[in-house]
This record gives sequence, C-alpha cells and structure tokens, in this order.
Amino acid sequence: MEAVGRTPLRGGIDLGGTKIEAIVVDADQTVLGSSRHPTPATGGPTAVAAEMVAAVKAACQAANVEPNQLVGVGVGSPGVVDDATGVVSSARNLSNWEGSFELGMTLSHELGTQVFVGNDVQVATDAEFELGAGRPYSSLLGVMWGTGIGGGLILNREPWLGRGGAGEIGHMVVRINGRRCPCGRRGCTEAYAGRAAMEARARKKYEQGTSTDLFKLMRERGRTKLTSSVWARALEHGDKLATELIDEAVEALGAGIASAQNLLDVQAIVVGGGLGVRLGQPFVDRITKAMGPHLFNDVRPDIMLAALGDLAGGLGAALLVSRRTGEGDQAGPTDGSAPATGSDASATGRPV
Amino acid sequence: MEAVGRTPLRGGIDLGGTKIEAIVVDADQTVLGSSRHPTPATGGPTAVAAEMVAAVKAACQAANVEPNQLVGVGVGSPGVVDDATGVVSSARNLSNWEGSFELGMTLSHELGTQVFVGNDVQVATDAEFELGAGRPYSSLLGVMWGTGIGGGLILNREPWLGRGGAGEIGHMVVRINGRRCPCGRRGCTEAYAGRAAMEARARKKYEQGTSTDLFKLMRERGRTKLTSSVWARALEHGDKLATELIDEAVEALGAGIASAQNLLDVQAIVVGGGLGVRLGQPFVDRITKAMGPHLFNDVRPDIMLAALGDLAGGLGAALLVSRRTGEGDQAGPTDGSAPATGSDASATGRPV
Repeated sequence: MEAVGRTPLRGGIDLGGTKIEAIVVDADQTVLGSSRHPTPATGGPTAVAAEMVAAVKAACQAANVEPNQLVGVGVGSPGVVDDATGVVSSARNLSNWEGSFELGMTLSHELGTQVFVGNDVQVATDAEFELGAGRPYSSLLGVMWGTGIGGGLILNREPWLGRGGAGEIGHMVVRINGRRCPCGRRGCTEAYAGRAAMEARARKKYEQGTSTDLFKLMRERGRTKLTSSVWARALEHGDKLATELIDEAVEALGAGIASAQNLLDVQAIVVGGGLGVRLGQPFVDRITKAMGPHLFNDVRPDIMLAALGDLAGGLGAALLVSRRTGEGDQAGPTDGSAPATGSDASATGRPV
Repeated sequence: MEAVGRTPLRGGIDLGGTKIEAIVVDADQTVLGSSRHPTPATGGPTAVAAEMVAAVKAACQAANVEPNQLVGVGVGSPGVVDDATGVVSSARNLSNWEGSFELGMTLSHELGTQVFVGNDVQVATDAEFELGAGRPYSSLLGVMWGTGIGGGLILNREPWLGRGGAGEIGHMVVRINGRRCPCGRRGCTEAYAGRAAMEARARKKYEQGTSTDLFKLMRERGRTKLTSSVWARALEHGDKLATELIDEAVEALGAGIASAQNLLDVQAIVVGGGLGVRLGQPFVDRITKAMGPHLFNDVRPDIMLAALGDLAGGLGAALLVSRRTGEGDQAGPTDGSAPATGSDASATGRPV
C-alpha cells in the first residue's frame, strides 16, 4: 500500500527521560504507526537524536510511509526549547545534555522533512486542549505529574509561554524554607510531589530504617527506579511509607494548583503525566479535595483526568506540525485564534 | 473658561476603603481637577455612591467642566466587579456591601454620563502598563501591596481576567498550614504581607506584652489604624516588632511573586499599592532579593516600583473610558490589541 493519495500524514515524537515514543497520524489524529525505543543513557544528544530518527523510521514502517513523505515531524522535548530554531538546552534528565543542541535541524536533515520542536509539557497540554479533556474550554491549566511537575497553559485558546519559560508550576513555593527540591531550591511543589523527589525521600527513609516494600516491588518488577507502577502497587498494598509520601504529594499539589488557579482563574485544569495517568481519577479527586481549602473564588474550575493518557505527548508533538504549517490537520490551524500582536506569543514562533 | 472646544475630558474614580479619589483628565492624561473624600463608614452602598458623585462634581468644578460634559467616568472598585453591567458585589472593606449593588447604573444616572466599572487592582495595573512603569512591556504583573495584596495581569498587551476572578496573588499559598489569613484560609501571601493581617498580628503581639511603638505612633498621627505612614515611621525608628513583621511580609511577597513568575514568566513586575508606594524603592529591592532564591528561570524579569504612585487608581479608572469607548484618549483604544476570540476576555466586556 502506498502513502500517496492518503491524507497528509504527520509524525510526533515524545522525548522522555526513559523512552522515546514516535507516532504517525493522519488528519483525523488516528495513529497509523507507532514505535517505542528506550532513551540512550549514554552518548549525549547525538545518540539521543539517532535513536529518535530510528523510532520515527520504525513508526513510518508500521504506517507504510517514508519519513520524507510526512508533512513534518513534531517533537515534545524536555529542557529549555527554542521554538523558533529547534535548539534544546539544559535537558538535565537526558544524557550529557547540559549545553545546547540543534535537535530540530539534526532530525530534519536525517528524516528529510521539516521538524518542529516544542516543550514536552506544553505540547501535552495542547493535545488535551485540542483533542482531549480540555476541548470544551478556552482557558486551561495542564498539570503533568511525573518525574517532575510540569505545567502547560492555554489562555484565550492559545498557548501561553511567557518569555519561553512559563508553566513551572512545580517550582511554585508551597512552603517557605521547606523541603529541598531536586532543582536545588526549597519548598517547591515538586520537592513534595515529583516522583524523583519522592524516590529520593523514600530511599533516605529506607536507609534510615523505615520499613517499606517500595524497593522490593521495584526489584520484583525488574526496575531500577520507583516507577509510577511501583508506587501504584505499593499504595494498593497499603505500604505505610508510600502512603505517607503520596499524602504529602497530594497536599502539595493541592496547594500549588490552587495557587495557580487563584492567580489565573482558568476554566479547567487537566491532570496528566506518568504518575497522574497511572493513579487516575481517584487521585484527581483527592487533589481536587486538597485544593478546596485554598481556592479563593467560590466558582470552582473543572478539574479532570487527562483523556489521552500516554499518547498526549506524541499527539501534541504531531499537532505542532499542523499548528505551524496549517497542513495535515482537518481542523486546519487552530480555529478561533486571534492574530498575535507583536507579543510574547509571536516571538516564540507560535502559529497565528 | 468653557470646556467646549477643549479635548474630550474623562473622569476617574479610585474607590478605596478609606478614601474616594476622583480626577478629571484630558486626552494627554493631564489631571485638570481632583478631589479626595473620605469613604463613608456607614450607610452602605447608597451612601458610598452619593459620596462618589460628590467627589466627581468637586473634581469637575476644579476642572471647570460639568459632569455631563465628560465623555464618561471610570471607576476602580474593590469587591467582585461585573465589568459588563457595573454591578459590584462582596466589597467587604466597604460599609454594608456584602451583597450586590448597581454602582455603574446609579452613578451614571446621577452624573448624566456613561460610567464604566473595573476591578481596582486591575485598573491600577492597566494604568502602570499604559502610562507608567510598565510601558515598555507586553506582559506585566502588577502587585498592589496595601491593606490586602492584589494582583493585576497584562498578557499579550491585554488584561487577563480569567473568568473574572484572576489576580489573587495575595491568596497564593506560601506556607501550607501556615498563618491564618483575613480571608479565613491558611498560609496565603496576604496572611503575612497584607497591612490588615500585619496590624492584627501586631495588636495580638502588643496585647501579649511585646513592646512596640506602632500604636503610639498611630495615635500621635491621629489614626485608628496602622497606616502605611505609621509602618514607615516605625521602621525608621527601628521598632523591633515592626521590623520583624515587615521582614516576614517581604519574605512572603518574595515567595508569592516568584511563584507567580515561575508560572507566567512575564517580562516585568510592578510593585505598587499604599504600602508599596510609601515604602518605595528600598523595599522593591528587598522584595527582588527575596524572590531570588525561588526564581526558576535564570533570565530575571524587570522588577520596578510603580511610577504613578497614588494616582494609578484614578488614572486607570479614567483609562477604562477610552478603552471601552475609544474616545477621549489620544492613543485611542489600546493599540496592538487583537480581537478577542469568544474567549474569557470578551465575556468580561473588555474592549477589543
């Protein structure tokens, strides 16, 4: 079967600290092919980019299309992303990626099509806004609860990126002089609720003699980290330390998200990310309850579980292509979007 | 001298808990007349509205114009403001104003010209953005440090109001389970930094036997409350309790404003309000320093003292008239503004 004659196809890559997920979608956002590769732990940006190329090629093979037949490929990347140039800097969860790397250019050269790079959390929020739980709304806060806590903003139906660094809800302060965060600061939401911070805390407590099954469960599942599944299983077992740490996480998320809502007063909040998706609706309900005492406005926002699950990153990355080129998506460029006005939004190369 | 033949004139009213300030301005934003009346402490909304009418008439007399010759009058009001209808609800700092009152309609009837009502903090932020310290920027956070802590947002050169309740930076949580806030919640920024909260704390400490000159200074100045001037004087005297409470306020403001910045990544932050203006640049410097350890982005925003001082409220209120009618301001309606897009912004009746 030939790709020629079919609707324009787009690629999307979700670049994570442990896995690279590549998908190929059609104009209806149907996933025609996908491929999941482990993220190289050594070799730096060059090795990671090579693995991303391999993942896209595998997804293309599954979809029966050549990479250079794609309208374009979008990437949701961690680190500091320059949307206009595709340069990614300070992706500290990735191998040897402290500096800057021309990710977009490198991939484009290898794949023979145009490549657009965006922030991973913002891209997942965009996907929930366009295709998922956020569809009915014009303003949205996406909270991605995983290794860290990321935030994505949609205001007036457009991504809000600030000067390029907006959305750091994980580093909103919920306790002055509080617990040390993996970022080095104190009292951040992520210091209590990020999976990496929770694991560090659990290890410390365990080494100090606190009883827990967390690390036994980790080894049983053949893992070297406390994954979302390990946490979920430990909670099901009623593990006391896991329960305590998750209780603290929910409390911090409640305060942090409520603070964001008091400032922005958005219509809806979507909770996703690895841990958010794995723990699901019961924990969205718990976060909602934890927000309650802090919310200033009597009219509460809608608070929902992400609808796209693990696919949000890849679908959002693929949406970058249609957003920036106007091609390959039946909806065309974001409808209802106002021309950007010499503002932050246009400076970041977002579509208008 | 007759008003006829001069540029179109506008009125602005800054409605505060202790004073009503009315001004008349021309197209260059020059204040041609002004009048300051105490806010009636009894008699409810009707009495307050009558005093506002009297203040406008006095300002008009000073400017040699009749109220009905004004293009319109703008009002910056506390409480929950319905921008579209001019109805003000829950203005708890004002006499007997728990319910709703048709402030815009009432004033319009008495003054014989159109009246536009906006949120006091947002209006002051708009003034700093259009005419003051925020002019060079397209995104701005205004922090009004006074009886409470109010926040105003300009994003993409437009006010961001959310569903009508945005900007509650004073109720962002900086310490989970922290100090009780006058709003009834715990750990809000305002619980540590609002002048009302600081006064309540000072009274409690004083009654418990802590030595302080705060209340002596208050009486010497013929006041019944710890005004901004009383705080400033006590700090100059090296009063220990005042110093401690202001230190806590600066610490809380640093964390709260940094949290807002981590979420929004605006270009600039303007600190105003009664206490902010009175304490001035040295305290903006202290707040900036307190923000430092919490800011996530290495590229710091510009942080400035409000440039319009006490006039921000009145000037911002007068700007509402030109924003909503396109008349009376040489700049015309906000230049560079994009059409609102069926979004939150248009629902609030903001200009497009």
